[in-house]
Amino acid sequence: MPLKEKSLIERIRRAATLHGQNASRGIGDDCAVLPLPRGHEALVTTDFSLEDVHFRREWHPPDSVGHRCLARGLSDIAAMGGIPRAAFLSLALPAELPQSWVDKFVAGLLKLAAQFSVSLAGGDTAQSPAGILADIVVLGSVPAGQAILRSGAQSGDFLYVTGTLGSAVAALNQLRAGKKLRPRSHPKHFYPEPRVAVGQFLREKNLVSAMVDISDGLSTDLGHICEESGTGAVVYAEALPAASGKDGLTLALHGGDEYELLFTARPERRIPKQIAGVPISRIGEILSGQQMRLATADGKTQPLKPAGWEHFG
Amino acid sequence: MPLKEKSLIERIRRAATLHGQNASRGIGDDCAVLPLPRGHEALVTTDFSLEDVHFRREWHPPDSVGHRCLARGLSDIAAMGGIPRAAFLSLALPAELPQSWVDKFVAGLLKLAAQFSVSLAGGDTAQSPAGILADIVVLGSVPAGQAILRSGAQSGDFLYVTGTLGSAVAALNQLRAGKKLRPRSHPKHFYPEPRVAVGQFLREKNLVSAMVDISDGLSTDLGHICEESGTGAVVYAEALPAASGKDGLTLALHGGDEYELLFTARPERRIPKQIAGVPISRIGEILSGQQMRLATADGKTQPLKPAGWEHFG
Repeated sequence: MPLKEKSLIERIRRAATLHGQNASRGIGDDCAVLPLPRGHEALVTTDFSLEDVHFRREWHPPDSVGHRCLARGLSDIAAMGGIPRAAFLSLALPAELPQSWVDKFVAGLLKLAAQFSVSLAGGDTAQSPAGILADIVVLGSVPAGQAILRSGAQSGDFLYVTGTLGSAVAALNQLRAGKKLRPRSHPKHFYPEPRVAVGQFLREKNLVSAMVDISDGLSTDLGHICEESGTGAVVYAEALPAASGKDGLTLALHGGDEYELLFTARPERRIPKQIAGVPISRIGEILSGQQMRLATADGKTQPLKPAGWEHFG
Repeated sequence: MPLKEKSLIERIRRAATLHGQNASRGIGDDCAVLPLPRGHEALVTTDFSLEDVHFRREWHPPDSVGHRCLARGLSDIAAMGGIPRAAFLSLALPAELPQSWVDKFVAGLLKLAAQFSVSLAGGDTAQSPAGILADIVVLGSVPAGQAILRSGAQSGDFLYVTGTLGSAVAALNQLRAGKKLRPRSHPKHFYPEPRVAVGQFLREKNLVSAMVDISDGLSTDLGHICEESGTGAVVYAEALPAASGKDGLTLALHGGDEYELLFTARPERRIPKQIAGVPISRIGEILSGQQMRLATADGKTQPLKPAGWEHFG
């Protein structure tokens, strides 16, 4: 049965209401109306989740697609030290898509939204000419002037990363190789946890100078910090929270699809070993110049080129 | 040549900067950071513009597609009485699309943005599996508690509409019939003007009880006001600002793709005949009950069913 837009909006509205996540003036008007706390600025991020580009129907169960869709936006808010407030879902669906797929997709998205007290406040729907097309917008807020940008790193800053690296892309590589995976056994890939609490802690304690999430992979996103800050950097291979061996190193450096935070801090700042239950590793240093280098255990260094995430289209 | 995402973002950033529309902290970080005026609430709207659903490459020149893409979002902000602040463009493009198409699309969008002092503050890009996929987000603001909702109409309110009705969909029908049109000769279809100034005036003067834009067509969007307000309505056929004849009436009642505002006001409110250069017509009345009816010159009434805009997919 072809999806009716009206009924789709109704279903999403009902699902959001059941989850207690309906903005008071949201889905159903021309715009959502959202108060921000006094003295806060708005944060806005948008992220596509396109079938066969960001996910595959034969690899990802629908609740994982919904979870990942929202996680991308929440992770961007986390990377600014922000507080997520509301999400907006634009969803174009092919006529032949079973309603059960949509229901599970929305349920996966709303479950993650509830975890972060984010309301699903609006969006758009259309029939898709080809494949499932989702675009998620997350509105967040941050006290004025306190958003953590990519551009604040300075020579001498230490470089840190949250969590562990490489297992998300390792799962993706197994999928690419044709292996069937149990989603719940590979949560870093199927149900990544955006590091919202870590980002807020770092911002509240005024600990960091620059931050980014590494959804594009460590080497590429460190490149973003260096480019925006006008600096170089060195990464200590041995210090990376990665699986052992050459593969572990490559996955940690260049594997994308990762929702950890990469941040810099002045050397005199004391960064906790663990924040909100997430381990923090010191993995390098910001340098003057514009080069990124990788230092290995034997004391040698080599150039580190941005070589992260390519879409798997 | 396949489009490189990086270069696309760079081109948009450069184009936005040339137009003086780059938010101070926008494209290039994880989120855009946007201050709102003190005491304002955020307004957020998202709208797809999908090839072969909302536009056709053989019908619409790229600058018209860009203009229409942003106009949809601005019109939603106008319908709340809001002030548009920033736009976010998510754009997925097929690999074979000429760069010149993208450049003209962005130019059309930025020209309209400049007209309304809206910055292009971020977005996302991807390669599209099929066709051009755009999703526009507009962030606006409104003094807290003053957004004009669809739900405020009361029995006895008068019903008004801005501008003229029917010519946008008349142009579309000519395109459907295979006729070639000169875009600049049919601005209501190719370059619609969102009624932002009218919406703001009505809100500032506290004149209206409910408002909606009629992008879905008058009959459908009046249905939205009635549904959200729990009322019925009567429309006077003779009062519609439409072309004469039965066709003119049908196009005015049910033609979508229209960016006029439909609003209600208590009968004691004096609504100007023209606001910001746009004529205002009183076309009906809000009634108790839930029925919508059409009153014709002979004094008879008939049921008015929502039968507006269907995508031309």
